[in-house]
Amino acid sequence: MLKAGIMGSTGYTGAELVRLLEGHPEVELTFVDSRSYDGLKFSDVYPNLRKKVDKVCRSVEVEDVPKDTDVVFCALPHRISQQKVLPLIKSGFRVVDFSADFRIHDGKIYEDWYNTEHLDHELLKMATYGLPEWHAESIVNAELVANPGCFPTSILLPLLPLVKDRLIKSDNIIIDSKTGVSGAGRNPSAVNVFSQVNENVKAYNIGGHRHTPEIEQELSIAAGEDLKVLFTPHLIPMDRGILSTIVLPAENLKRHDIEECYEKYYGHKPFIRILEDGKLPETKAVSGSNYCDIGFVIEPRSGNLVIVSAIDNLLKGSSSQAVQNMNIMFELEESTGIEATSMWP
Amino acid sequence: MLKAGIMGSTGYTGAELVRLLEGHPEVELTFVDSRSYDGLKFSDVYPNLRKKVDKVCRSVEVEDVPKDTDVVFCALPHRISQQKVLPLIKSGFRVVDFSADFRIHDGKIYEDWYNTEHLDHELLKMATYGLPEWHAESIVNAELVANPGCFPTSILLPLLPLVKDRLIKSDNIIIDSKTGVSGAGRNPSAVNVFSQVNENVKAYNIGGHRHTPEIEQELSIAAGEDLKVLFTPHLIPMDRGILSTIVLPAENLKRHDIEECYEKYYGHKPFIRILEDGKLPETKAVSGSNYCDIGFVIEPRSGNLVIVSAIDNLLKGSSSQAVQNMNIMFELEESTGIEATSMWP
Amino acid sequence: MLKAGIMGSTGYTGAELVRLLEGHPEVELTFVDSRSYDGLKFSDVYPNLRKKVDKVCRSVEVEDVPKDTDVVFCALPHRISQQKVLPLIKSGFRVVDFSADFRIHDGKIYEDWYNTEHLDHELLKMATYGLPEWHAESIVNAELVANPGCFPTSILLPLLPLVKDRLIKSDNIIIDSKTGVSGAGRNPSAVNVFSQVNENVKAYNIGGHRHTPEIEQELSIAAGEDLKVLFTPHLIPMDRGILSTIVLPAENLKRHDIEECYEKYYGHKPFIRILEDGKLPETKAVSGSNYCDIGFVIEPRSGNLVIVSAIDNLLKGSSSQAVQNMNIMFELEESTGIEATSMWP
Amino acid sequence: MLKAGIMGSTGYTGAELVRLLEGHPEVELTFVDSRSYDGLKFSDVYPNLRKKVDKVCRSVEVEDVPKDTDVVFCALPHRISQQKVLPLIKSGFRVVDFSADFRIHDGKIYEDWYNTEHLDHELLKMATYGLPEWHAESIVNAELVANPGCFPTSILLPLLPLVKDRLIKSDNIIIDSKTGVSGAGRNPSAVNVFSQVNENVKAYNIGGHRHTPEIEQELSIAAGEDLKVLFTPHLIPMDRGILSTIVLPAENLKRHDIEECYEKYYGHKPFIRILEDGKLPETKAVSGSNYCDIGFVIEPRSGNLVIVSAIDNLLKGSSSQAVQNMNIMFELEESTGIEATSMWP
Repeated sequence: MLKAGIMGSTGYTGAELVRLLEGHPEVELTFVDSRSYDGLKFSDVYPNLRKKVDKVCRSVEVEDVPKDTDVVFCALPHRISQQKVLPLIKSGFRVVDFSADFRIHDGKIYEDWYNTEHLDHELLKMATYGLPEWHAESIVNAELVANPGCFPTSILLPLLPLVKDRLIKSDNIIIDSKTGVSGAGRNPSAVNVFSQVNENVKAYNIGGHRHTPEIEQELSIAAGEDLKVLFTPHLIPMDRGILSTIVLPAENLKRHDIEECYEKYYGHKPFIRILEDGKLPETKAVSGSNYCDIGFVIEPRSGNLVIVSAIDNLLKGSSSQAVQNMNIMFELEESTGIEATSMWP
Repeated sequence: MLKAGIMGSTGYTGAELVRLLEGHPEVELTFVDSRSYDGLKFSDVYPNLRKKVDKVCRSVEVEDVPKDTDVVFCALPHRISQQKVLPLIKSGFRVVDFSADFRIHDGKIYEDWYNTEHLDHELLKMATYGLPEWHAESIVNAELVANPGCFPTSILLPLLPLVKDRLIKSDNIIIDSKTGVSGAGRNPSAVNVFSQVNENVKAYNIGGHRHTPEIEQELSIAAGEDLKVLFTPHLIPMDRGILSTIVLPAENLKRHDIEECYEKYYGHKPFIRILEDGKLPETKAVSGSNYCDIGFVIEPRSGNLVIVSAIDNLLKGSSSQAVQNMNIMFELEESTGIEATSMWP
Repeated sequence: MLKAGIMGSTGYTGAELVRLLEGHPEVELTFVDSRSYDGLKFSDVYPNLRKKVDKVCRSVEVEDVPKDTDVVFCALPHRISQQKVLPLIKSGFRVVDFSADFRIHDGKIYEDWYNTEHLDHELLKMATYGLPEWHAESIVNAELVANPGCFPTSILLPLLPLVKDRLIKSDNIIIDSKTGVSGAGRNPSAVNVFSQVNENVKAYNIGGHRHTPEIEQELSIAAGEDLKVLFTPHLIPMDRGILSTIVLPAENLKRHDIEECYEKYYGHKPFIRILEDGKLPETKAVSGSNYCDIGFVIEPRSGNLVIVSAIDNLLKGSSSQAVQNMNIMFELEESTGIEATSMWP
Repeated sequence: MLKAGIMGSTGYTGAELVRLLEGHPEVELTFVDSRSYDGLKFSDVYPNLRKKVDKVCRSVEVEDVPKDTDVVFCALPHRISQQKVLPLIKSGFRVVDFSADFRIHDGKIYEDWYNTEHLDHELLKMATYGLPEWHAESIVNAELVANPGCFPTSILLPLLPLVKDRLIKSDNIIIDSKTGVSGAGRNPSAVNVFSQVNENVKAYNIGGHRHTPEIEQELSIAAGEDLKVLFTPHLIPMDRGILSTIVLPAENLKRHDIEECYEKYYGHKPFIRILEDGKLPETKAVSGSNYCDIGFVIEPRSGNLVIVSAIDNLLKGSSSQAVQNMNIMFELEESTGIEATSMWP
């Protein structure tokens, strides 16, 4: 049994991780850190976990982390995460970090987009970008896995195969994503008040969303040259799910070319589902699961390729992907503990 | 491995049953009957099950049911269900029926409320009302288990202990239930069109809902005398969940009396969670699970006891309760395959 | 033209009042007070009002209120409201107060339920409870109108005629109300975060909700004796609307008796709609309007009368009712400026 | 007073038209045609209109339309609409048609996209495309106004000024629209069942939506050359509203250029609101109104211009735009009867 602990367990992604690890057959959850709920039963914060999780939240300092802990998950906000991850790594723990703090290899780009100093540019370079379908070989030995952002996961999974094999050469990739409100977290704020977002849809942070640099970094690495994207996120009135609609020049590609490319990279991957001709993803079909559904249309009139992908923002976009990373780090079956299928409806 | 088949698999409760049985470690799902989708892959009807369920829907007649089938689930509408269940039972199959056709022991009451003839009053008397927390002893040997209605499950579980031990003697039990729209099924109709029910709440069938007689039957059996209830269902804009608010005279009961009674009947039951003083159920905490959460308040000013319960209407209110019944029928661990906890949010 | 000002204009009820007064043919809106948004254009806070309202929010002290102001609306939280209303009244302004501070005639009851001191028990006695269908005669001359709470409006309108004419004598009135989330206001808090209340329903404050004393006060006055109620509010995932389901002994009443009583009190009232036999209210039919829809069922099996009412919590439950009060105070046509019908859907 | 009648009054757009005309100070609504609800009170179909509309639905043949009718609105499905509109025009009535049957000037394009024969290609050429901000001069004398589609309204209003003045020259216009479910109408179907679309988002008809040709027709006329677009609609879980996100090469445009262009065409238009720098439209701010909100961002990294527009799909996207057309046809003030502002929330 792996011994796992969580720093920052009472946000939505932390709580989903608690739920998943509690049901993981190879994991013993050893501590659930929370500053805000120190001393409270975890199931008093998340009543869905009554009778399942009897742990009590504790404010855990790095020096209190038990020495025999195999892996520490940090589900803290960026900037705060660095301050925990650095000493954890120095103390020899393996870490899966949910924040943006270790996703961008280039410290300067991080500092530009996040408008804050990074405390350790060297560690940044060493960290592994934890997209398991692409970086399993680094993940298996990684000390520090930077769990990808939710939007980037939904965007990179459909694009990377095509970019890698140079089927796509365009530098005009238009991405229009729609996210459920849980992405805005559990802390009450102007952007997640029910009556402000229910019966409403809006775009936000056009061209300036902080997930942009990690999308561009991973696409550029795969392409072997710098790629830029236009990324426009939208907030829609539902709890969970991200749907990304990606448009780029079709460049005479045939359906078969793309299917073949996806088959090559994803044919054996357990959590990628390529939809057949005539079908398109919807978030309800992946909500509650670790799946990423991908469908596409070659639109002959405008000469564009339109790719649509769907994930659960809190799971494949965060917590279950973190477990997938852990499974790979410890050479367990990749899908252990995250096999759940979406319910319908 | 049990061999299980489903008649009527493509309604919401049928599809949830498919999902649950597919993940059940002791079950092999042998056929998924559907008249409407005959020949179609099940995952083309329910895209959440892509890569998980590769079965094809078939229109299955009773005579085509394989002889080595251990259990047949019928998830058909009332009236149609009888016509399948009768020959199945005669052919020696054990059946769990989701419809209302075998829940009411008294054929005349069935015929009055459902306004249709019942084809076999004798079989009706023999059928077991499949509320596992109360009838496990009959379920274990039952040929035919009538899976309870969703509202009755949410109402009987909190009331039966109090009625059984005569803590409650009133015949004025006021029940106000709120259900998500999935209870209206998947077939398009005036009552489940999005824009008619979204941003809306209404009461319906006041005093005349067909779940009333099974509520009264089970309460009356427990009480040893005839009990009547006033049951008012409401439709609210969400997918899943039933919350029942039950009011009755407190009759000088103390909190401790009720807690003790619940502990006696449910202390060892895996799927009932009694909430501590100051906490009340909410449907989000049980959605996706087989749990029933129960909380209560003794209101001194009006002298009433208010009990609130929450279930997932499609799971504890239907499909996972059916699996729970099957587990008991075949002497498996009661919670096998239905241990999933609700996600939050 | 009446000159009207608003203290506390940027909460949801304040903003709805701004919208209504802006379109009111007999009103000039002279100031919109807001401490939080001092200096900001009102339409920057409420973008629906772009091009309609060009007012700028100002933090307005009582001494700054222009002397020629005919009416001041206070849409401030209780406790804070008193501190504004007292000097306004002393300065000779007529006031419509949205808070609970002047609804309860008995200062001691106010202090018990609101757990705060009341600064002026004499003024409390003088204030008029602004339910226009019942107190128009006092409202017309009132210095201070206490605009009713949203739940009480939905409960008193259907009950008062029956209580007044002694058709109902019971002291066991069971009220189960369901409200949209806008009732929790615009300020972010644990109770109005989207992902905590979406796909969820719960009861809260059973027997202890602060709207209880004003319900009992008005019922008791009408009955000529003390009446108690059991009031259980529920939060459901929609923006607007309150549906109240009220159960009490039918006491051999016939449908005709009740219809006659409603006709007597409401036949000539513009905003009460009594539904015919077989029809029940739904909130969508009143959302956006000043209507209160009332339907009822006499349930013979249990001997109960079930009354269902629906209002828009922010309009008839607050802002448009305040305008209705103002219309009466200044002897305008009662429905001026609040004639809008609900949209569907 | 204009005498107006409605053919096909009981769909959502017909019913919204009834509501608007009922409150229009210059209109007398003379008949409300409905085949499905012949003989039923209109307010029994739309309970929001109780006490407001006492009309009874009648199945009205063209020969029954009173001779003194000034204008007939047809809110019927395409294909069926033609069959009513042709004889109405022949009988000399002025018609505003809600269907797609007269929006496309080229009969062959209509027949290709709608896969049905058009009965009168000549009349098609004569019909006026009823986008009031652009075609008021033709509308004023038109016999037949083809009311635009909901998506095209949201797309043409922001694009036409830029195309007309050749600020935009690209033929790669990428449009990603999100619509509420009311666009799918009131008749129950697989696409509007609550539990299929709630907590879900999906793209549909990529590149093949039937609103595409009218978008391209109007853009091409304005540009003076053929323009193509890629149009991808999405269905999101809300009642009302369309948000369109439009991406195209920025071509060195400055913010000021675009603002100036919008000011030139829309500065004096009552229902277009151009948002200032830093603000973006949201559907809640226009829902219930005839406004179209437009905001934009020039994104320097990718060199794209991103325009976002928001309308109420049933109002500016249909019924209130039809009233705006009628106002122009009969030389009333353009905003008469459709001045309502959106509520918030």
